[in-house]
Amino acid sequence: MSDLVLRNARLWGIPEPTDMTIRDGRILQHGRSQVGADASEYDLQGALVLPGLVDAHAHVDKTLFSGPWVPRTAGPGLAAAIEYGRVERGKYGVPHPDYIEALLTNMVVHGTTHARSHIDIDPDLGINAVHAVREAVDRLRGRIDVELVAFPQTGLLTSPGTLDYMREAVEAGVELVGGIDPGGFDGDAVGHLDHIFELAERYGIGLDIHLHDGDNLGVYEFDLIIERTKALSMQGKVTVSHAFALFDADPATRQRLIDDLAENRINVTSVAPRKVLPLRDLDAAGVAMGIGNDGVRDLWSPYGTGEMLERTLWFARNSGFSKDPDIELALEAATYGGAHILGLPDYGLAEGSRADLLVVQARNAPEAVMTHPQPDLVVKNGVVTAHTGSLSE
Amino acid sequence: MSDLVLRNARLWGIPEPTDMTIRDGRILQHGRSQVGADASEYDLQGALVLPGLVDAHAHVDKTLFSGPWVPRTAGPGLAAAIEYGRVERGKYGVPHPDYIEALLTNMVVHGTTHARSHIDIDPDLGINAVHAVREAVDRLRGRIDVELVAFPQTGLLTSPGTLDYMREAVEAGVELVGGIDPGGFDGDAVGHLDHIFELAERYGIGLDIHLHDGDNLGVYEFDLIIERTKALSMQGKVTVSHAFALFDADPATRQRLIDDLAENRINVTSVAPRKVLPLRDLDAAGVAMGIGNDGVRDLWSPYGTGEMLERTLWFARNSGFSKDPDIELALEAATYGGAHILGLPDYGLAEGSRADLLVVQARNAPEAVMTHPQPDLVVKNGVVTAHTGSLSE
Repeated sequence: MSDLVLRNARLWGIPEPTDMTIRDGRILQHGRSQVGADASEYDLQGALVLPGLVDAHAHVDKTLFSGPWVPRTAGPGLAAAIEYGRVERGKYGVPHPDYIEALLTNMVVHGTTHARSHIDIDPDLGINAVHAVREAVDRLRGRIDVELVAFPQTGLLTSPGTLDYMREAVEAGVELVGGIDPGGFDGDAVGHLDHIFELAERYGIGLDIHLHDGDNLGVYEFDLIIERTKALSMQGKVTVSHAFALFDADPATRQRLIDDLAENRINVTSVAPRKVLPLRDLDAAGVAMGIGNDGVRDLWSPYGTGEMLERTLWFARNSGFSKDPDIELALEAATYGGAHILGLPDYGLAEGSRADLLVVQARNAPEAVMTHPQPDLVVKNGVVTAHTGSLSE
Repeated sequence: MSDLVLRNARLWGIPEPTDMTIRDGRILQHGRSQVGADASEYDLQGALVLPGLVDAHAHVDKTLFSGPWVPRTAGPGLAAAIEYGRVERGKYGVPHPDYIEALLTNMVVHGTTHARSHIDIDPDLGINAVHAVREAVDRLRGRIDVELVAFPQTGLLTSPGTLDYMREAVEAGVELVGGIDPGGFDGDAVGHLDHIFELAERYGIGLDIHLHDGDNLGVYEFDLIIERTKALSMQGKVTVSHAFALFDADPATRQRLIDDLAENRINVTSVAPRKVLPLRDLDAAGVAMGIGNDGVRDLWSPYGTGEMLERTLWFARNSGFSKDPDIELALEAATYGGAHILGLPDYGLAEGSRADLLVVQARNAPEAVMTHPQPDLVVKNGVVTAHTGSLSE
């Protein structure tokens, strides 16, 4: 593999444009370099370089991206949405490797190099969605890494048999165990959490739990999660997604929860809803937060494109962020925060890092969020994977 | 002017693609037509046609669009933001016809054909911002109509002399009188409102009042506005912008206010904040709502591009809309709602309407909002004004 040289690159956090040499999948060095005649060179003319975007909460298996427009007709509430998705998906062949591939492609051309996707596991589908997603990821040939979560979308206790399929998914190599509103949806907060913690602990893998439950039910469930994380010494391996209780809670309770999350190295992710997570407080306490696109163009929601910079804008805007350091904090969540949660080694733009990055037309990072341009160039493992909206050969 | 024919056009609300003939600035007819050999024809191949987007709440005079990146450093709160803008704008030559022209150009190429812009009027600037905006609008040579509001951004009572300049602005042809948080910012709710209602009534023009004041202060001010609208028989001429009290109020108070707004034909506008206006309730009661981009890339906010479809998406998303009819309702606000508020005659896609429209790659209106594509074609007064991101000659 020949060297890749990016000239006149404005690296996020470094004021003056510099050159970057990439060799054997890594950032070899910043600054002028002597490279062989066969090196590929790009003159970025001062364009901004960001580390590869990390989608920390996706549901790529559900997508209808590139497929038919399906108007949503679910009844109100979470349970109705879940039932609607379960009943209707078969009509459209969901999970469908072609739709998943189309979505992953749009993610790649917009600079996402890593994602964590929850995958529906239930008695109807078994672990078929795992196969569908893996097939689509394989078609992208290394342009994006997707970590999978075995997700009991239709319930663990309310949908008997699901736990067995989740175990099967884990045996098949799925990286994490999921969970969903243990009390508010599945009806037994302690029972649900005991099952998923036990499964994760037995296989020595992580957990990522959907927690839409807000208010004091959500606080109660947070406490159960913190208690189990501590008891099983699973610090650093647990993520709570959505986590609306952190928005709903009174300031004292919120701070107490944040401190407990920090102490137990429990991460959170947000998909930038109106109930936006308190990123500044989380960051101050040292809690890692990631941003994700959630379901994109599926039976749950017509929103989304898989574009992380746009989602980061939504997060920043709903957070009321208008100052550069705050907007950069949101972008840190979409990059370094997600990378921390996914446990990516050697992530970033420093010398020696894995060369996963994107090049955008922006003068600085806040502008990149505000304009969320399509990247000119996306690099993964040192190889150019996309150019201005198209995958590279 | 030769005829313009759009073939295979999917008109919003009409299921089957049809042809549209445009003559002398108007939509002459739908369906097959006999036109002269010199007609300009476009085969839209089923692309979607929407009526021209209406930005019902802009601040184009403040923009730094296409100019330097200015990190925001204002202190917290409305008063600090106002003072920051007043003190800093001179450094950047704001209001600046070049920046305004750049923003208006981006609005045009994204399908906005009409806008209402609040224009800062104060003792420092006098009515200079009116001149700057008019110069920029003139440079666009009819591609966009911009209605102006004489806006006392720095206060009417707290910034003595402003009222005289507002009168000067109105004498100079500015179409509406503005106002801002009569109690919460300007310190005398009754005094402020009496002044601006008197000015508007004397000249027989409309009012558009910024009301960020929420909770019961906002409700109190709403009542004062409703009372004056009724007393001065100004039904149909008053708009309340932002109107956060409609979000904050308890359901009974909200409904009571909405009914009073409907009875007095008072309009509202929203810029799609987290405190989103209750569009379904407003629509059910017959209150017109418009959507606007607010300030774009200025000393107040780094957000925005002037793209109305993207702003409509933000409004729909923060409203929790996921069904097609709801998303279409948001798009109706961004088109017909704004057109009603601006009093545009013969607006729409029906035969006989003014030919103000855009063509986008989408299968239906909800998809156009979700993907907010750049229009392939924008038509204003029957003339093609923009093609895929560039102004036409």
